[in-house]
Amino acid sequence: MPRAVCLLSGGLDSTTCFAVARSQGFDCYALSFDYGQRHRAELEAARRIAKLLRAADHVTLSFDLRRFGASALTDDIDVPKHRSTTEIAHGIPITYVPARNTIFLSFALAWAEVLGAADIFLGVNAIDYSGYPDCRPEYIQAFERMANLATKAGIEGSLRCRIHTPLAQLDKAAIVHLGHSLGVDYSMTHSCYDPDAQGHPCGACDSCLLRRKGFAEAGFVDPLNYPPCS
Amino acid sequence: MPRAVCLLSGGLDSTTCFAVARSQGFDCYALSFDYGQRHRAELEAARRIAKLLRAADHVTLSFDLRRFGASALTDDIDVPKHRSTTEIAHGIPITYVPARNTIFLSFALAWAEVLGAADIFLGVNAIDYSGYPDCRPEYIQAFERMANLATKAGIEGSLRCRIHTPLAQLDKAAIVHLGHSLGVDYSMTHSCYDPDAQGHPCGACDSCLLRRKGFAEAGFVDPLNYPPCS
Repeated sequence: MPRAVCLLSGGLDSTTCFAVARSQGFDCYALSFDYGQRHRAELEAARRIAKLLRAADHVTLSFDLRRFGASALTDDIDVPKHRSTTEIAHGIPITYVPARNTIFLSFALAWAEVLGAADIFLGVNAIDYSGYPDCRPEYIQAFERMANLATKAGIEGSLRCRIHTPLAQLDKAAIVHLGHSLGVDYSMTHSCYDPDAQGHPCGACDSCLLRRKGFAEAGFVDPLNYPPCS
Repeated sequence: MPRAVCLLSGGLDSTTCFAVARSQGFDCYALSFDYGQRHRAELEAARRIAKLLRAADHVTLSFDLRRFGASALTDDIDVPKHRSTTEIAHGIPITYVPARNTIFLSFALAWAEVLGAADIFLGVNAIDYSGYPDCRPEYIQAFERMANLATKAGIEGSLRCRIHTPLAQLDKAAIVHLGHSLGVDYSMTHSCYDPDAQGHPCGACDSCLLRRKGFAEAGFVDPLNYPPCS
């Protein structure tokens, strides 16, 4: 069975992406990051999901992006709440973390090289997050090209790195549909940027709002418990 | 004064590269990594050098690449000693750390974006390390291209990222000459892959051998103390 490194945050998208990789016959190595994010509760979700979806291994790497800050996820900046769909869809939000996907993919590339894996799965989607530079297909292609020049396997031509983004062209409702068709248990996931001390979702940040809208449009009940009136 | 992020390991190359960046009029932000390397002694050198060369700030990020291993620098693998120049110059050595420069440059990109810096300095050279995939000019160009698609500044066209590798075409002797012309105090640096518990260089690993050869060819005395007969 070919090996793949799957970036797993524990959220809706990365969990669905992981299930897609499994359904394509890959032996999946889950990679998560404790980078000082406000919503570290997602790491517990990632652990549950890696176990449930039978990851061959699960590594959580730690480093502190709060040292750089400049994002609502890694700095003392409030997470925006109750924004409209139009507001969310346009511009780069303050929850954007500089170069985060580049850092994540770089570690995935390192692990893939060690494992002898050619394939890396990343759950970005270009629809809901149209404003994120590092979710766009042209960025992913450029990373893949760089990756094939960066490694021993690349230089020897023995392994051609492929970055898979199976959700790239899907909106949240389509992702929820896809996940259900693959048997994903979304009660295990965590999407909120600003959970309370017990890890419960706020229901009102961009990530919660997009998720709830996706479930509603897909005609499924989101199994998470949101605060009343959020 | 324009800002630049300078990767600083504390060795001969990165220290010289830092001095080049300073000489070109940049306000230099030094970035080092505690990645579980065998030769953590280099981090003390990096701290000394950042202070001496008046870095605007110096960040040392920590993460554990021993979790992936597969290199003599991050795994229980002996560091090769007493290799000939020919052996060192050909093939990819066991001290190669998978995707290390990609990881380092990704963090540099993140910090550069936060600082509003367009310029990143990296002390790779393509002559002595001809076998390292992530020291080659084509790799650096591909990283730069990717970087310009990865960030907010890149997408807005407000800042064009440049990866500077001023040592790329120099051999070690030329680097030593350049450093001396810029007033670098090489007694502050650390190059050895396999130092003793007190941080003293072994004198016989590839990094020590290339350094010693460079000083000898340049006609300068290497101020470090090597063991007798090493």
